[in-house]
Order: sequence, then structure tokens, then C-alpha cells
Amino acid sequence: MSAAWNLPENRYFDPDPAVQRVALEIFAEIEQLPIVSPHGHVDPRLFSDPQSSFGSPAELLIIPDHYVFRMLYSQGMSLESLGVPRQDGGPVESDHRKIWQRFAEHFHLFRGTPSGMWLAYEFKFILEVDEILDGENAQRVYDQIAERLASPEFKPRAAFERLNIEVLATTDAASDSLAAHAAMRESGWRGRVIPTFRPDAVVNLDTEGWARQLESLRKASGVDVHDYGSFLAALENRRAFFKDMGATATDHAVVVPRLAELPEAEAQAIFNKALTQGSVSAAEAARFTGHMLVQMARMSCEDGLVMQLHPGSFRNHNPSVFDIFGRDKGFDIPVQTEYTHNLRPLLEQYGDDPRLRLILFTLDETAYSRELATLAGAYPALRLGPPWWFHDSWNGMRRYFDQVMETAGIYNTAGFNDDTRAFLSIPARHDVWRRAAANWLAGLVARSVVGMGEAREMAQEMAYRLPKRAYRLDGDA
Amino acid sequence: MSAAWNLPENRYFDPDPAVQRVALEIFAEIEQLPIVSPHGHVDPRLFSDPQSSFGSPAELLIIPDHYVFRMLYSQGMSLESLGVPRQDGGPVESDHRKIWQRFAEHFHLFRGTPSGMWLAYEFKFILEVDEILDGENAQRVYDQIAERLASPEFKPRAAFERLNIEVLATTDAASDSLAAHAAMRESGWRGRVIPTFRPDAVVNLDTEGWARQLESLRKASGVDVHDYGSFLAALENRRAFFKDMGATATDHAVVVPRLAELPEAEAQAIFNKALTQGSVSAAEAARFTGHMLVQMARMSCEDGLVMQLHPGSFRNHNPSVFDIFGRDKGFDIPVQTEYTHNLRPLLEQYGDDPRLRLILFTLDETAYSRELATLAGAYPALRLGPPWWFHDSWNGMRRYFDQVMETAGIYNTAGFNDDTRAFLSIPARHDVWRRAAANWLAGLVARSVVGMGEAREMAQEMAYRLPKRAYRLDGDA
Amino acid sequence: MSAAWNLPENRYFDPDPAVQRVALEIFAEIEQLPIVSPHGHVDPRLFSDPQSSFGSPAELLIIPDHYVFRMLYSQGMSLESLGVPRQDGGPVESDHRKIWQRFAEHFHLFRGTPSGMWLAYEFKFILEVDEILDGENAQRVYDQIAERLASPEFKPRAAFERLNIEVLATTDAASDSLAAHAAMRESGWRGRVIPTFRPDAVVNLDTEGWARQLESLRKASGVDVHDYGSFLAALENRRAFFKDMGATATDHAVVVPRLAELPEAEAQAIFNKALTQGSVSAAEAARFTGHMLVQMARMSCEDGLVMQLHPGSFRNHNPSVFDIFGRDKGFDIPVQTEYTHNLRPLLEQYGDDPRLRLILFTLDETAYSRELATLAGAYPALRLGPPWWFHDSWNGMRRYFDQVMETAGIYNTAGFNDDTRAFLSIPARHDVWRRAAANWLAGLVARSVVGMGEAREMAQEMAYRLPKRAYRLDGDA
Repeated sequence: MSAAWNLPENRYFDPDPAVQRVALEIFAEIEQLPIVSPHGHVDPRLFSDPQSSFGSPAELLIIPDHYVFRMLYSQGMSLESLGVPRQDGGPVESDHRKIWQRFAEHFHLFRGTPSGMWLAYEFKFILEVDEILDGENAQRVYDQIAERLASPEFKPRAAFERLNIEVLATTDAASDSLAAHAAMRESGWRGRVIPTFRPDAVVNLDTEGWARQLESLRKASGVDVHDYGSFLAALENRRAFFKDMGATATDHAVVVPRLAELPEAEAQAIFNKALTQGSVSAAEAARFTGHMLVQMARMSCEDGLVMQLHPGSFRNHNPSVFDIFGRDKGFDIPVQTEYTHNLRPLLEQYGDDPRLRLILFTLDETAYSRELATLAGAYPALRLGPPWWFHDSWNGMRRYFDQVMETAGIYNTAGFNDDTRAFLSIPARHDVWRRAAANWLAGLVARSVVGMGEAREMAQEMAYRLPKRAYRLDGDA
Repeated sequence: MSAAWNLPENRYFDPDPAVQRVALEIFAEIEQLPIVSPHGHVDPRLFSDPQSSFGSPAELLIIPDHYVFRMLYSQGMSLESLGVPRQDGGPVESDHRKIWQRFAEHFHLFRGTPSGMWLAYEFKFILEVDEILDGENAQRVYDQIAERLASPEFKPRAAFERLNIEVLATTDAASDSLAAHAAMRESGWRGRVIPTFRPDAVVNLDTEGWARQLESLRKASGVDVHDYGSFLAALENRRAFFKDMGATATDHAVVVPRLAELPEAEAQAIFNKALTQGSVSAAEAARFTGHMLVQMARMSCEDGLVMQLHPGSFRNHNPSVFDIFGRDKGFDIPVQTEYTHNLRPLLEQYGDDPRLRLILFTLDETAYSRELATLAGAYPALRLGPPWWFHDSWNGMRRYFDQVMETAGIYNTAGFNDDTRAFLSIPARHDVWRRAAANWLAGLVARSVVGMGEAREMAQEMAYRLPKRAYRLDGDA
Repeated sequence: MSAAWNLPENRYFDPDPAVQRVALEIFAEIEQLPIVSPHGHVDPRLFSDPQSSFGSPAELLIIPDHYVFRMLYSQGMSLESLGVPRQDGGPVESDHRKIWQRFAEHFHLFRGTPSGMWLAYEFKFILEVDEILDGENAQRVYDQIAERLASPEFKPRAAFERLNIEVLATTDAASDSLAAHAAMRESGWRGRVIPTFRPDAVVNLDTEGWARQLESLRKASGVDVHDYGSFLAALENRRAFFKDMGATATDHAVVVPRLAELPEAEAQAIFNKALTQGSVSAAEAARFTGHMLVQMARMSCEDGLVMQLHPGSFRNHNPSVFDIFGRDKGFDIPVQTEYTHNLRPLLEQYGDDPRLRLILFTLDETAYSRELATLAGAYPALRLGPPWWFHDSWNGMRRYFDQVMETAGIYNTAGFNDDTRAFLSIPARHDVWRRAAANWLAGLVARSVVGMGEAREMAQEMAYRLPKRAYRLDGDA
């Protein structure tokens, strides 16, 4: 017989009774708050077509989720055997029950991992599966889930409403038509799903297929991009369009966050070289990206869109996986990231500007206490985003609270992002965050660092109000 | 109605009863020990003039304290509105009640921060204010504090004695006349306030106004500094004077702690260039500073002054704040700091010398377990200073105990420094340290890592004896 | 009267009753498992000669143990006074009772350190000394231990069996004859002591005495090494010999783990330069080492030997100690270590190869959550070794569990290595690891992260099965 999930109401909290009692009390006050999801990668088409569905259990939980399949891959399973599509359309496992069986037989790999926590939540509380998945019950559980997914309450729009999501931001290329968002609006559906402006593919001149991306930008903006000046104009045009479509934020990835403006002539020259020669050197591309991120800050001052910076990920580290399967396949590996020197040119220009809101993320936890908390605790333009990606975990949150809050204070942080493409993991991830916040605050109360009244207010901030304010989701700054 | 401070005797300790009981027992034995404050930035003139005072409540707690006003600034308040003086003498808020009101209305920003802990202690135990400051009670509390500050027991000398400070070291420029220290001596007051020799302004050739600083050194030493050799002689002269005035230590700041001697000719050439041309390159200045710090180690071997090294702070990160308000305004941001390679040249020369005592600090906590504990656990000349600045906090101390002590052992550490310019925060900071030490030791006892007798001895060391020995405050090494 | 050791069965566990109860239950199931020691530095001659002995108490616990004497040295004792032999044969303390007395009088330096924990275990449970060592009881304890060491059950072979060691790997130069291992085999003794192939001395061209080392390799292999090709052949020859003698693994040290293949012609040229000119530049040596480590990975794919990488130690940091006493004298200091960029060339070639098993170690804990867990959680060839050296400690293990396991999962880790040259510390170190693992798992159970059944299985893995599989000690992959 398979084991039952053990997910009691006091799960994850410190076992110490003095802490746990307070944690439960605080958590009870925030558990049911609406979910604010200001940054993530859910596909908006799930909601634009009222008839869309989550697909098979394998399509819901394995095939698109690099958190899940990279762990299986690390233990010797091929991505083909897990149904991950090849870019060349070559054969991969198409029997979703076989994929599911493989997953189930290796479900122990997720013990103690955040994916294990999220999946437990999804199985138990959303999909109403009572047993821990294993090789024996795999097909039975598959049937159960498939049945649920076929029911009307598991249509994505119904799920969105049932899961109490107040607002969900997607992440969209600068050239995206936002047709899915428009379709949602036009359908009269009242779920708030807003776009986020992510221009990486045109701003990073060494993006694979940059010329094609630029062509898409030309079409989307209607601006004839033929030089640096018209490039800026096209971006401004698209920002205005995104804002009109409900966006409140932009998002930017960069390996080394060296945000420094170039002399205008140099920026023009590099851009022209990319236009005319089709490529620039890696150093030129890096300098241009850093320059463009300062332009983005300037535009944020002008249009009020909140700027997000996600630095320090070495993308597609495994070239053979990248060649066969493409990007986002579990091989984005963090690198050491420096902020104090690198952000200074941008902060010199805009760090004191009350119009700018720049939300910083990191994959390098060593920056928490050393650089990020000290910068965010001083510059008015800055807020710190929550623990990101590999650090979006119980211990990652604990380390974040521990290393950030004393210096930055909670009011210079931005609450939680789920940052997920796995829609059903949204409530699971917010559940972990709210529990972690409640537990942290309970520890402060139990040690008389703050009083219970203060902790209650702080819990409301961390679970709900901070992200709304940080991302200007109420229209306020 | 405003809330009352909740500062029970068991505050901050682990809530686990087995730990807390032992922590209370250990803390009771060290709570009343005299305060040894071997490094800080209190103005000695507070004590040289028997009639000096702490000023208004805003002058006591807000205007001079960059820990406090940088947090308010980070949330959008201008420094002018907080009464921080402009260098050009331009207008800033002069109504201290308005400044106080602003502070009070944003007092929630300090929740969970070390400043919040220190202020709570100062309000409750020193200023005898029972309510948590807020917008409603702000003016009432202002009156209360103003009344206290007007009373004789709040004259600085009286406060020094009442707060049980055994010794307080100030930090003083190489060219300082130490007139305030002399006045104290001459007045017959028995408080022990000693100077510390900090020659950064002349040793770092790129100090703003270096020529002026050098001129001051000439005057103070009576040495006609006209070349590198006479520069060394002037410094030796001043060290002897400081030592005569009670100093037991020197202190040195540097961004990158590359402590390596130059060929004598190169040192001479760089110094001459600075003298004759008025400036040197950044690289030359850095090399010269590294060279001079080795000279300081050599002089320490000769005169027995303990050498302190505070590396890794990017000073005045915000240029507009620096231009308007000057240094020490909350914008000193830590940078990654390397010790293993950088300290090696100095350690090669003096690391085994029994005459040298070099106390190392860091703003980069990653160096604790990797470099600092391993170096201090091997070289006899080294001791590790306590968690510094942003890390002078409950969690910062916990991380320090956790990451340093297993490898270095407590006997290669130097106890606590409050390192503050806010005089009333001295007992508050030592209270946090003593609680943190007691709590850490209680955890060791509860887990049978050390016995109760051992923990008691270790507590005496950490609260009192280690800093006295490390700083040679008893005259012993 | 001296104090008695306090080493209760619940030692080191969290004092929280809910955690401690579970920890005790889990620990009881793994405490008696056989010891698997797949990496360490015990001298195999202890076991090849049935009449060998551990020597005097000072020879057992002080003179050869750099963990111990570097702490005493850091507090001002000379290595000569501790009996550490000089390379020139010059005089050092030869009265082992005096050395012992010195150690005993400073035994408090080890409070709260891992050495303190291990020594406590060895004194109490192996040597059956009931008192904590101090200056008063030093000679009495010396007598007791000397008596034990003279008894038959303290012959190394008898101790090996009594301590329940299933397998012990030594670390041996590429040119080692493995005569001691052969003698063990031939003697019919059934203890499993296997060699590990460590070719650093010939692979690192800047090794002191490299030409001599190469000559030893020629002799040992019977290969006339006259160029790069014959060098590779000699190494392959030795690997085959080691494998035949029971080795399942190789081991490699490098400061900067830049593992990148050179063009064949460049590798040949650098090697020829070393052969003909006797030396190469530091940069050439570093490039060649990085190249050779890729060759080692290629050979591992071919012969199945598990590859271990121990990077990031700045060896012999103190030149005067090195000159007088030689290597391994407590002055190997960690440096910052980068893995994401540096390992990529190797991983590009072999990271997906099911034949390769590469076990990574670090002295830079910042790499745990940022680089090592993310790499090991993705590449099938990788496993993470346990906390190494300074991090082989209670808190080091806690940080490792905390920072590695959520992202890598326990199944991408390799259990424990004691990595010691102090034979009696082997059971002490495994005791700490097993307690730390039990305590960590108990924390997961108490917080409902995993169930008790899962925790039990994980404990068996962490204490016994993971290292056997990772090091292919059962012949399986």
C-alpha cells in the first residue's frame, strides 16, 4: 500500500511550541488572502481560449517543467524518455502513461526539495490525490488526475478563479502582439492577467536570431528601425502599448549586471554594426546591453513602469541539451554576481529619482547581506525581490529573511513572486512563502524582537501589500 | 493608545526552554560586567568639557546617526527634512520637533532591524520611555526625552560612569592634537577614554585634500615631511604621541586589503609624485596604501600598538549625497573582499612575529569560514574582530559564531566592538552581543558540545577578557 | 579534580524534544552500520606490517595532526615545542610527555571545535579516558593511553576490525608501488584497504621536484616517458595497476578548477618544455593541469575509475613554516572558487556521459547553493562530495544539508568522507556525520517535509549506501 500525504496545518513550521503556536495564528490571518503574482511565465493562451485545457497529467506536471525533468535527467533518465520535445521534431516518448510511470518510480528524488513540496500540495489540495506517488500507484493516480483535468472546474479560467488569484503577470517579448491578453479582455472574462515587457531578445545583440527578433519588433511597433534612435523609439512605442494593455512592469535578464551608459556615439556605432554586419563581439553586446538597461531605467522614470532585473544566470550551460531541446531545459546555472560596482553608474543617474522603481533579484545569495540589503536600505529607487529560482524554497526563504531583513527592513522588499510556468504550482509556492513568513515572524515574536501586533501587520505586508505597492498594481507608487 | 515596549529579561534568546534556561543563567553572570569598548567613533569632546550635552532628542538619536537616517532616506524622505546638515550650509529642517515627528511616523521601518533593537533599549532602559514611538505619541515622548537630557545625570560624563564603561577608545586622525583627551586627563576626571591612531587621511594619497592633511601632520609632528623617509618619521612620531596619550591600537581602512611592500625606491617615487604633482594614479595610491600598511605592521612590531584592519567598504557610493552632505551618510556599501592572497605578503613578513597583533574585520561574511577563520586559526599574529557594521546584529552574530568559531576557536577572536558614534547605543549594542554570546553558548551546552563550566568561562572571555587581551588594555600581550 | 566528559547518547542533537526524539530513533538505526571510508590519508603501512603500532600518545594525537598543532601554533606555541619534525632534521622537542603536557594545558583552545568533538570521542569511547584533559591530569592520562596503545587490541589491524570499517581508501601517488597494499593482500588479512590514484605530483608541472617525480613514474610504469604521448601511456598503465590493486577512484587537487582541454600540439609543447627545460611558467602549468584533468575524465570514462576533484586550497601559505617543516602543516588556506565557468569545458565533453562519475568538493561554501547543487542537480556525471576539511564539522554539515539538498536532492550527493590521516578520528568523524544526518532528517520529519519512513531510507543512504554507490564500491555504477 502506498503512503498517504502528511500535510498537516502546522507543516514546515518550527516544532518549538512557542514559535509554532504564533506561526499558526499569524498564518491563519494571511492564508486566505488573494494571490498577487506580479512576475511569472504562465502562458496567457491558457486563459484567452475558454476551451483550453491543462492536457494530460504528464503535460501538466512533467513535460513543461524543467524543475522536474532536470532532476530526473541528473539521475540518468534521458529527456526523450520524459517526452520533452526535440527542436528537430525527432521522436520522443509519446506514451504519457510511460512518462508518468518513470516519474512515479523516481518520485523519491524529490524528497526534501521544493519541487517535492509543491507537488505534494498540488496532488493533495488541488488534484485531491491522497497517496504519495510511487511506482505501484502510478497508473491509478494518472487516471484520477486525468479525470479531474477533464472536469469543468479544471478549465484554466475556472481554476484561476477558484485559486483566488487577484492578478497574474505574464512575461512577454517586446514584439509580442499581446493577442492573448487582448482576447481575454474582449471575452469579458474578469480574471486580471497582465503582460510584462521583456525586451531581452532585441536588447541583447547576441541573442540567437537577433535580426529576426528585430524584424518582429519593427512589425509590432510600426517603427522603421534603421538606427539606434529609431530602435529606442520602437521600444518606447511598445512600452506604451504594454502599459495600455495593463502592464505595470518590465523585466530584464543579464549575466553581469554592469549597468552603465555609453557615449551616445558608441551606442549608435555598436547598434549599426549589429544591423549592418549581423553580429557584434561579445564585449560589444555586453556593453550595449548595460547601456540599454540604463535607457530602460530612463524610460521607467518617464512612463512609470516598474523595472525588474534578473542577473547572474549562465543560460544553456549544457550545449548538447541546448542543441537538441532548446532553452529552459534545466541547465541555467548561477554565477557569482557583483552589484556594488556594477549598479553604481545607473544608481548615480537614477538611484535617488522618486519616479524609478527598480526591483533587484539574485541567484547569488552571498550578495544578500553584503550588497543587496545595504543598497536597498539606502537608495530610494530600489526594492529587493524575493528569493529567486533555486532559492525559492523553505531554506532559501529562511536565509533571505535572515540575511536581508535586518539591514533592508521588510519595507524595502517586494513580497513574493512565484515566477513559475507551472500554473498549478502558484498556490503551492505562495503557501510556502506565507508559511515561511509566518514562521519567521513567529520567531521574532517568540524572541520579543517585535510584538504580536507588529507581526500581524508585517504578515499582511509580506503576503499581500508589499508586492501590490512595489509593482504599482493599485496605480500608486 | 500607543503600545508598550516588550523587553523581557529573556528577550532574543531561543524560545526552546532547555536553551533559554541556560542562556539566562550564563547571561546573568556577564550582564553587569564593565563595558570594554576598544573601537568606536564617539566624539571625545563630549567628555572633555564637563558642561557638554547630548543636545535635543533629534540631535541625540537622528541627525548624527547614519544607521537611522539612511533607512528613512531609502523610503523617500530627504536628508534635508531630517535635519542632516548640508556642507554648503544651505537650509535644512531646523525644527527638531518636526524631524522627530517624521522619525516617529516611520518608526515601523526599524522593525526587526538592529537599529530597532538598540533604540528600544535606549528608549526603555536609558531614557525611561515606556511607549513604542509612533506618530501619536511623538511630541509627548520628545518632551520626556528633552527633560531627561536636561538633567545632570545625562551630562555625558555622568552617563559614561552610570553606563559602567571601563574604557572607551575613540578614533582619531594622525594629525589630531588629542586636545580633548588631554583636557580630560587634566581635568582629573577618571573616565578612561583613549585615542586610536588612524592615519588613513595621510596614508591614502587619494584622500580628498591630502596636501592639507599632510600639512596638518607636519604641524602636529613637528617633522618637516619632504620625502618618504621624513613621512615615516612623522608617523612614528605621532604613534609615539598617541601611545603616550593612552592609545593601545591603530586602525586602518582600505578597499582591497592588498598588503604588500613595494621596493623602497618605488614607495619613495610615488610619495614624491604626490608631494610634487599633487596627485597620483588610483593604482599608485592603492599600491602605496598597501605598502604603508606593511610599514604600519612593522611599526606595530616596534611600538606594540595593536593594528586593526577594516577593509571592503566602497565609501560614498551615492555621489549626489556625498556632494551635498559629505561622508558617513549611509552610502558606504560593502564589496567582495579577498584575504588569502591579499594578506599573504604581510603575513609572510610578520605573520609569525609574536610582537604583532593584527585584528581583522570584514563586511564580506563569505570570508568568515573560508578565509578569516582559517587564517586566524593558524597565524599567531592574527585575531578576528567581531561582526562589523551591517553584521553587528543578532543574526550577524549568530552567523559569525556559526562560521568562525569551529575553525578559529573563540581564543583567536577579539570579543566585541560597538564601533558606534551614537554614545547611548553603546550599552544597547553590548547588551545584544552578550545576549547573543550567552544564547550561542547555551546552545552548545544544551547539545553537550561544551559543559556548563566551560561555557561560563567562555562567556567571561567573550564579554570582557578577550577584548582586553586582544587590545592589550591591561598592558599585557 | 578534572571534569568528566559529558557525551550523552543525545549529544549534538537539537534540544527540541520533537526533533530530538526522532533524531535518536533514526540515529539508532544507522549508528552501528559499517564504516565506508572512500577517501582519506591514513598510511597503509599501519596495516601492512602486523607489528606496526600507533606510537606514543603524542605520536597518535598531536605530532602528525595538523588540525591539532595549527591551533596550538596560532596561540603562540612553536611547532618545534610540539615535536613536529623539521625537514633538516634539526632539534625539536623529543620528550613526548612534555609535548603532551603542553597540549593538555591548552586543551581549552579546542572548545566548540570539530577537533574538540573528535578528541572527546577518541578519549572517551576508544581510549576509555573518562576525564577531560587538562594540565593537572595530563601525565596520568598519558600513562593510561600509553598502556592502551601497548595492548594487542590497539594494534592497527585489530583496531580496524573493532571499529567496524568495511572499506578504507588510502591516497597514493601515481608512482607508488602500492607495496603496502600488496603486503596486506599477501598476508591474508581480510581488512579491505584500497588505494586511490592521485597523480598530482606528475600532472602539476610546477610540483617541487617534478623531474624526480616523473622519474619515479617511469620506473613504476616501465614506460619510457619521453613526450606527452608516452606520459599519457604511463598514466594509463598506472591507473590499470591501481584498479587491479582494488582502487575504484582517482583524486585530483587544483587551485583553480579550470578544466579545459588544450589543442594537442599545445599540450605536447608545454610537456616537452617541462621535460627539456626543467620548468614552465605558472600559466603554462595551470593550463596543462586543466588539460590533464580532462584527460583524466576521458580515462575515467574508459576504465570506470571514479574521479574526485578537490579544488581551491592555497597550499603552504606560510613560507617559513613550509621551508622548515614542509607541507601539510596547517597552512593550507581556502580561496574563492568558481565552478560554473571553470567546469564547463569538461562538462561539455563528458557531463552527460554515463560512464563518468565526477565527485566535486569545495572549500568555498558559497558555491553550495549557487553552483554545486545546481550543477549536480542537472548533469548526470556529477555527484557532490560531503563538507570538506574545515567544513567537516557540525555546523559545516548543517550548512551543507541546508544549502545543497533542496536543489540537488540527497541522491546527487556522495555520503560522507572522513578524509583524515588520524586513524582514530575515523569513527569519531562518522559519528558526527551520522548524528548530523539523523538530526537534519529529524528536523524534516518534525516539520512534515518528509515522513518517518522516507527519513529512515534517507538515513541508510546518507550513512552507508550513497558512498558505496558513488564510489562504485560494489562494482555497480
